[in-house]
Amino acid sequence: MERIPILKMGELLLVTIQVDMHDQLALTLQDDLTNRISAEHARGVLIDISSLEIVDSFIGRMISHISAMARVLDAETVVTGMRPSVAITLVELGLTLEGVHTALDVEKGMELLRRNLRPSVRSAPRARR
Amino acid sequence: MERIPILKMGELLLVTIQVDMHDQLALTLQDDLTNRISAEHARGVLIDISSLEIVDSFIGRMISHISAMARVLDAETVVTGMRPSVAITLVELGLTLEGVHTALDVEKGMELLRRNLRPSVRSAPRARR
Repeated sequence: MERIPILKMGELLLVTIQVDMHDQLALTLQDDLTNRISAEHARGVLIDISSLEIVDSFIGRMISHISAMARVLDAETVVTGMRPSVAITLVELGLTLEGVHTALDVEKGMELLRRNLRPSVRSAPRARR
Repeated sequence: MERIPILKMGELLLVTIQVDMHDQLALTLQDDLTNRISAEHARGVLIDISSLEIVDSFIGRMISHISAMARVLDAETVVTGMRPSVAITLVELGLTLEGVHTALDVEKGMELLRRNLRPSVRSAPRARR
């Protein structure tokens, strides 16, 4: 089954969206991501959309949903690599990605997350292997 | 134009291969990656293939080429997330990825690179913005 890989980097999870999202792929990603946040005790999620030339309301909503789900699991979401044209489209679509942090690239996104993350009560136990 | 995003993380570049590679995409990736290694003064390249269920001789050769190109630019390449079935196929195809390091996941790959990287004579000047 087609799925988007989720890469673990320390306390963060990285997702690079490269392909056109369709309903099933988006649902699979939401499932996988929430499971991984829980299993890996992740504190932050980075979603890189630098290869997306077009972001429609479907993807915009998916990002908002993922961010809301991550938040209730005590993880922050940062969207990185958004193209200027995509930002214009999102605002024109009325999607301002409330509650989603953004950064120009993954490196800046990681910095932002590391700076923002408060020490967690659950940061001590590491993910089981 | 379709292209695979290259994410910069400190001295490392990360490429996640999610889509079927065809000739033009592979050539674009090689071009982009060599340009980025040079522009960003990267010391290591991580290629994650965890979402690839099938690796044929074309991709195998592409990985070997990228690794060889990176090496002459003084950067090490680590392939991460290879599935057991892919490892079997590669060996059966006679592609043993000579000179390419491998690691089970991106996190281990980053550790491997950070441990292996010798201090570089060019590590002091940072990439221009």
